[in-house]
Amino acid sequence: MKSRRRLRNRRTAAVDPVAVPDCFKRKIPAYDLLDEQALVRLEDHAEWLLSEIGIELRDDPVALNLFKDAGATVDGELIRFDRGHVRALCETAPKTFTMFARNPRNNVQFGGDNVILGPAYGSPFVTDLERGRRYGTIEDFRNFIKLTYMTPWLQHQSGTVCEPVDVAVNKRHLDMVYAHLRYSDKPFMGSVTAPERAEDSLAMVRIVFGEDFVRNHLVIQGNINVNSPLVYDNTMTAALRTYAAANQGNVISPFIMGGAMSPVTQPAIIAQAHAEVMVGIALTQLVRKGAPVVYGSFLTTMDLKSGAPTFGTPESSLATLAISQLSRRLGLPFRCGGHLTASKTADAQAMQESTNAMNPAILAGANFIFQAAGWLESGLSIGYEKFVMDAEQCGAMYRLLRGLVVDDEEEEGGKDMQQRALTRWKQMLADYQAPAIDPGVDEALLDFVARKKASVKDAWY
Amino acid sequence: MKSRRRLRNRRTAAVDPVAVPDCFKRKIPAYDLLDEQALVRLEDHAEWLLSEIGIELRDDPVALNLFKDAGATVDGELIRFDRGHVRALCETAPKTFTMFARNPRNNVQFGGDNVILGPAYGSPFVTDLERGRRYGTIEDFRNFIKLTYMTPWLQHQSGTVCEPVDVAVNKRHLDMVYAHLRYSDKPFMGSVTAPERAEDSLAMVRIVFGEDFVRNHLVIQGNINVNSPLVYDNTMTAALRTYAAANQGNVISPFIMGGAMSPVTQPAIIAQAHAEVMVGIALTQLVRKGAPVVYGSFLTTMDLKSGAPTFGTPESSLATLAISQLSRRLGLPFRCGGHLTASKTADAQAMQESTNAMNPAILAGANFIFQAAGWLESGLSIGYEKFVMDAEQCGAMYRLLRGLVVDDEEEEGGKDMQQRALTRWKQMLADYQAPAIDPGVDEALLDFVARKKASVKDAWY
Repeated sequence: MKSRRRLRNRRTAAVDPVAVPDCFKRKIPAYDLLDEQALVRLEDHAEWLLSEIGIELRDDPVALNLFKDAGATVDGELIRFDRGHVRALCETAPKTFTMFARNPRNNVQFGGDNVILGPAYGSPFVTDLERGRRYGTIEDFRNFIKLTYMTPWLQHQSGTVCEPVDVAVNKRHLDMVYAHLRYSDKPFMGSVTAPERAEDSLAMVRIVFGEDFVRNHLVIQGNINVNSPLVYDNTMTAALRTYAAANQGNVISPFIMGGAMSPVTQPAIIAQAHAEVMVGIALTQLVRKGAPVVYGSFLTTMDLKSGAPTFGTPESSLATLAISQLSRRLGLPFRCGGHLTASKTADAQAMQESTNAMNPAILAGANFIFQAAGWLESGLSIGYEKFVMDAEQCGAMYRLLRGLVVDDEEEEGGKDMQQRALTRWKQMLADYQAPAIDPGVDEALLDFVARKKASVKDAWY
Repeated sequence: MKSRRRLRNRRTAAVDPVAVPDCFKRKIPAYDLLDEQALVRLEDHAEWLLSEIGIELRDDPVALNLFKDAGATVDGELIRFDRGHVRALCETAPKTFTMFARNPRNNVQFGGDNVILGPAYGSPFVTDLERGRRYGTIEDFRNFIKLTYMTPWLQHQSGTVCEPVDVAVNKRHLDMVYAHLRYSDKPFMGSVTAPERAEDSLAMVRIVFGEDFVRNHLVIQGNINVNSPLVYDNTMTAALRTYAAANQGNVISPFIMGGAMSPVTQPAIIAQAHAEVMVGIALTQLVRKGAPVVYGSFLTTMDLKSGAPTFGTPESSLATLAISQLSRRLGLPFRCGGHLTASKTADAQAMQESTNAMNPAILAGANFIFQAAGWLESGLSIGYEKFVMDAEQCGAMYRLLRGLVVDDEEEEGGKDMQQRALTRWKQMLADYQAPAIDPGVDEALLDFVARKKASVKDAWY
């Protein structure tokens, strides 16, 4: 316990945000797709949805009461808002903020011209050229943490880089948060699958950063998805409330496939997403004014014949560009996009779709793009080679963001991109060296994980 | 001859440009990378190059005299211009113009918000999944003409889609122009490899369109490359003069690899390209005021280790975006980009690079993008599967250009993009039906080709 306190003191002393290197800032203009009139029309449509149709918060009386107390019209689980009410509630959210990493050199800034990239999030499967597609394990999880840690263009570890299905459902968050804290020292996202798992995630960062520090500094985020159309389920709102109450962060992202979970017309999709994300942001502020939150969007399209999601389509590009303008009008950090694809391997289709998806996210002025490395198969799997190929593109995207400057470096050419990527990730893992950690802190983390695991039986669903 | 005259009269009667379908127009804003100050600085740098460094016109006394008579300072083969002179000479070039196709429904508009796509140009090699990489033949040439003709998203046939190396160097232009005129009825580019070959190309379009019509309507273009840095060779200027004198079109494109043929800094590359292209445009106007001309650019980067060209890099994207702004300030139709790649097959690298290259060309507001389908191996080969995959993306690009509209269609998903593409091009060629042609015109074309071929011995270099 002594060494823990020592580190905590050291960490508290180093609270000044480190200046973000210039290479992680956008120096080129954001692309403005829509004019003022179109934007006002979209905002108006969102206000109409919130005032006339309303949004459902399922099984979360606490959240419902917060909105009720704030003056919203709550009817069972359906909430309606006067025009402009939700927008006004969003106003206390900070426009820019620092997220603190275990290594202060890896602190990041959200908002403004800052661009933060991170790897894929949420895949049950992993794949590589040698072993093929299989369920993810905690070893894979650690591998992707290590690869991300070693990639200079990925400043954020994302969160559930893959599902470690060899660990019990109710315990895997402990191993995941431990891996984030032990095998990297970059910022990351914690568990959102249950409020008690979000609490465990918080407990673990408190061990590392110290309770006082965590009370006043952002060190962990929850990745909150909206159950579109116009529904939040209580798993998400409870996790959101847990992080916000602890003055920690949330990234709120409606996931909308055009035609599946929304009307098919693009303006309607965008207005719906805008309404949904504002409600989530408002909830963070009702829980705790000033809690850091990111305005997210995950808008894609689907094949109307098969019902499968499609990525990198012009329709999703246009939606991304439009919603980024709405986020800028709210003045909040914006998350979107990534190297997205429906393809199962890092083949021609994968890279075409990924590139088509990433370019508009970059030009839209996104501040936070996770799903930027490794994503395959509509998110069902994360690929080792894809990770390396995407990560190289992330470097290219930062060169694009720099704008017109003198430049003598070029990327290495090659004939077999996947094969080179295979060699690369294996070499990276072989070269990996864990960042230093105070042995006492590590011991305390391991002790916490062990005790928590021992306290309940494994659950596998 | 009777039927020829008949067709000529029919054609002359149908001179009204057909309204361009809305789907081929850009409805989204062009992306403005640079501000006014930066643009003025680039223009100033170009003027400095033209006034202080000058540009060489090799072995073309006719062109040198035209510039001398116009008031330029000619010193041997080096020409210098007072500041603003070249720009002023460009002013008589038309800002928008119609190019007439054999089928008036396929007429296209250059300039403004019009976007014209065409296939790859200039590859000695062709490749497909079954037969692999090999020298192009006249059969391949015809196949790509047919595939382009059948692709709705390609409105322009480009020109030398591949080099038919089984035909003598000094005769292959005859077979190529015949193929353009016989197997398609869309607009195309003629020979530029020698002035007499340009004359032959003109003679052949006169057979089809009629001499009077060709005198007053654009029906053929020369693709003129600048021998950067700051040199035009007489093959190019003589071809340029031939087309301009006939009131036909030219597309002037500096081909610059950053670091190889120019100083490595991007602003210097852009200023050089701007200076070079303006001189070519000015020459067209000195030959014939009002001759239709396209402001082209082909700016890419190279691997400074291997010296090989690289495509889809952020540096070339930024250069494309910047030079498009310079072209808009001149008010001329702009050509750039395409689905470019250094990869030898339509693999992951190919589609990543192609997509990265095409997106900025589209957002830059390009009016004419050939090299949009089939390009592989830095232009050394054209691929059948790549052609089909790119052509599909061309359709996606037009959907992007439409902006936010109601849309229910989605592209077909699939696991094996190259394999699907193989099936597709073979089916297209099987389904191909030649457009109708007046038998007398066809006979006259074939007769012209036969007589020309018989009049000289084959040359193979």
